[in-house]
Amino acid sequence: MNILIVGLGLIGASLAKTLKKNTSHRVLGWNRTESVSRRAVDDGVIDETGNIEDLIPKADITFINFYPDAIAPFILEHQALFKENSIVTDSCGIKTKLCKELDKRDFHFYFVGAHPMAGREVSGYDNSLATLFDNASFICTPYDYTPKYITDALVGLAQEMGFARTVVTTPEHHDEMIAFTSQIAHVLACSYVLSPLAPYHAGYSAGSYRDVSRVARINADMWTQLFIDNGEPLVREIDDLVSNLMKFKYAIVNGDENQLHDLMEKGNKIKEEIG
Amino acid sequence: MNILIVGLGLIGASLAKTLKKNTSHRVLGWNRTESVSRRAVDDGVIDETGNIEDLIPKADITFINFYPDAIAPFILEHQALFKENSIVTDSCGIKTKLCKELDKRDFHFYFVGAHPMAGREVSGYDNSLATLFDNASFICTPYDYTPKYITDALVGLAQEMGFARTVVTTPEHHDEMIAFTSQIAHVLACSYVLSPLAPYHAGYSAGSYRDVSRVARINADMWTQLFIDNGEPLVREIDDLVSNLMKFKYAIVNGDENQLHDLMEKGNKIKEEIG
Repeated sequence: MNILIVGLGLIGASLAKTLKKNTSHRVLGWNRTESVSRRAVDDGVIDETGNIEDLIPKADITFINFYPDAIAPFILEHQALFKENSIVTDSCGIKTKLCKELDKRDFHFYFVGAHPMAGREVSGYDNSLATLFDNASFICTPYDYTPKYITDALVGLAQEMGFARTVVTTPEHHDEMIAFTSQIAHVLACSYVLSPLAPYHAGYSAGSYRDVSRVARINADMWTQLFIDNGEPLVREIDDLVSNLMKFKYAIVNGDENQLHDLMEKGNKIKEEIG
Repeated sequence: MNILIVGLGLIGASLAKTLKKNTSHRVLGWNRTESVSRRAVDDGVIDETGNIEDLIPKADITFINFYPDAIAPFILEHQALFKENSIVTDSCGIKTKLCKELDKRDFHFYFVGAHPMAGREVSGYDNSLATLFDNASFICTPYDYTPKYITDALVGLAQEMGFARTVVTTPEHHDEMIAFTSQIAHVLACSYVLSPLAPYHAGYSAGSYRDVSRVARINADMWTQLFIDNGEPLVREIDDLVSNLMKFKYAIVNGDENQLHDLMEKGNKIKEEIG
């Protein structure tokens, strides 16, 4: 197959490197800043680049790796160019809004939302890795009218690429879970380092500070879009988190050792059981 | 020197292993459960064990590695036995309460509170490591009347043991910083996994879930004592955290992209600058 990677930043270039490493498909690539596409060819990360109008018609599967709000406009603008019955997919971190915008039965290609679930605190082509998706999940969110063979083809490609796990679900369930597993983790890491004591942590910190604060290194442009577009599930998670923090606070204020012990024992048990 | 390690759990046995690996001091050890002391001798983790009444008088430096509330009672009960001018120290995670309880100028030995800053999600002798304190800070909190040569001797031992950094400060400053770098991190990890969605994270989680939830694996008995005994600074951190989380919430609810972007940019900048 010809697989086109549109956008050669952290995720796009890592997808390209993974395809080159683990599959024998031909990898086409395109990036808005042309110098990056040329470097990707020189580095062997992609096999071919060129004008986007020439690349799109050749692709059996196209991955769009843009900021969330730029994906649907790009697909709609270039819709006439996609190959008949080809698969068009993406890699952005939320799915409900995008899948609604592209919920069109009359496309001559198949759009299937996807989320290769990995990231780094740094971004851009230079930080991309052929190993970024080792141990990662590949989640995709087809429509109820997406033919099964299309979903199977996308899932099959993810397996061939070496993703540790593939999940097929609805955009809504994806976004609710991601609000918990990823978005609220970023919100709380940022909220944590905003403490007035953060600048003085050196000498007083160990593994728990390091791990809990890690994802405060955040791309504010991209995550602003992701948070706004997934507001409802994310606010629900913030509310749950604040309510649990307040239980800790009142147990401490009241010197209620039993309540405090119960809360931790519950947290410990959940973590022990679910990993 | 003869160095006595009282309590051979995760921290005590790791201290013993570090002393054996990096120094040539003689390491005496004692544990309430005698079978553990005998295993430690067999494993070469300590050089000698025996009755606590026989061991204490031999020690130039004694490390007490008990749960926070058991340290002062142990020292007071055995105070007559400590060697003249020897150093008695501990390894527990908060210092103000303990240092107040042991603030006695008329001891014939010197008590200096200490905190070798490392831990694991698992506890006990079997999980101790000779490498636990690699890259760790050794913090100690002498009284204003503690002779400088005594503090220097303790700090010197920590350096000899290979701690990456030594810090001398007041108990109050230590506890305020630890409320931020360690305690609130444990509170929020527990609060996080108490979300109703936590049990369903498999397939939807990656590095941010793993890192932020790691320290929810917690020893509820020990941390209940630590949290209650450091209530005021910890509640201040919970309040700060909740207030920052609410800023995120309202920015999202109001669709205020600028405010959301500012919060993350601020968090990102702090993390970038302070590590």
